[in-house]
Amino acid sequence: MSENLTIWTLDWVPEGPRGFVRDLRLRWAAEEAGLQYNIGTVPFEDRHTNHLDRQPFGQVPFLTDGQISLFESGACLVHLARKSDVLMPRSARGEAETLQWVIAALNSIEMVSVPWWFLGLSGNSENGLSAWLDSRLSHVEAILREREWLVEDRFTAADLIMADVLRVPAVRARGDRPASEVYVQRLVARPAFKKAHADQLAHFAAADESRGRHA
Amino acid sequence: MSENLTIWTLDWVPEGPRGFVRDLRLRWAAEEAGLQYNIGTVPFEDRHTNHLDRQPFGQVPFLTDGQISLFESGACLVHLARKSDVLMPRSARGEAETLQWVIAALNSIEMVSVPWWFLGLSGNSENGLSAWLDSRLSHVEAILREREWLVEDRFTAADLIMADVLRVPAVRARGDRPASEVYVQRLVARPAFKKAHADQLAHFAAADESRGRHA
Repeated sequence: MSENLTIWTLDWVPEGPRGFVRDLRLRWAAEEAGLQYNIGTVPFEDRHTNHLDRQPFGQVPFLTDGQISLFESGACLVHLARKSDVLMPRSARGEAETLQWVIAALNSIEMVSVPWWFLGLSGNSENGLSAWLDSRLSHVEAILREREWLVEDRFTAADLIMADVLRVPAVRARGDRPASEVYVQRLVARPAFKKAHADQLAHFAAADESRGRHA
Repeated sequence: MSENLTIWTLDWVPEGPRGFVRDLRLRWAAEEAGLQYNIGTVPFEDRHTNHLDRQPFGQVPFLTDGQISLFESGACLVHLARKSDVLMPRSARGEAETLQWVIAALNSIEMVSVPWWFLGLSGNSENGLSAWLDSRLSHVEAILREREWLVEDRFTAADLIMADVLRVPAVRARGDRPASEVYVQRLVARPAFKKAHADQLAHFAAADESRGRHA
């Protein structure tokens, strides 16, 4: 089955988002689980409209696996987690708690951190969402002071996505939250993250050369 | 088992959020599926800190089901959906697509609409997130022009949460998107929604009387 697994991303992006395009979440998960996968691409040009049949919001990543085609990095991540207990315990409770924390990373943290970051693109990291972001990050800090992993005292896909949400430089720079910082450092030191990260950087760098473009 | 199912919410809220507190998503799902459930409450006072052991961000709802305790309305919803094929098809593909659209409602729409609404509380519905919100709502409109349901041409938990995200008055008032409006109207006309909505209003109204408080 796994030879049919393809993670889809853009063929090229500028320097800024490299290392943070969300195909990294799926590369990382596949590397952790030892799943074989291909990388497919859609063109950066007209990216908002050229693959709406596969990602109806015009984003990446999306994933194809045999007859299944999925978008939303969180849903794709859970799909991969179902393939390997390296990513998720097999118990009903373990699966439910992993999904809970995957959604918490997306909907309790990223729901604030990404719009906050977006507003800050105009130059001001203090904006109408700053206090809310600080509150959410402090809640996470309180959790991570008490435990090493989010689910069942072991690495799961929930840690993978929470670390990916928290490792954004502007978020990490937001106040002094030592437990969160240690957590992020521990997660991004995993060989599977390093491989996925290096592969994404190499993928976009190769596009610079083959297309005669510059980041 | 289902006599152990408890949906937890606040004991009281002011008038504004009534009908929109997210326990409604879980009440609605339980009503659709015919699951028996109890309503549990935590005090409105000190709500940000008085139940962190069960919802580490100090929010509601959360859910208890025997030995399982879950937070994040999306994760609780998927937990309920696993109990009944009224809420989710039983095929691997149907489950994956339902989760995909549940996360899309949360992370592609609500991730923009809730921060946009929050910024608008200061009085200005045109803010730094307006154009992004309009773009996301237009993508949803394009999807809903083509289909009646998000997954497998039938009602699922994905429609339940997407409709709950889209039915927010400020979001509905945001431009002319007839397919989205028809979709919302069709979903909130379902008897299970009406029952859940009326029950939530009655729950908070009863608290006014028993506590001698006024909304």
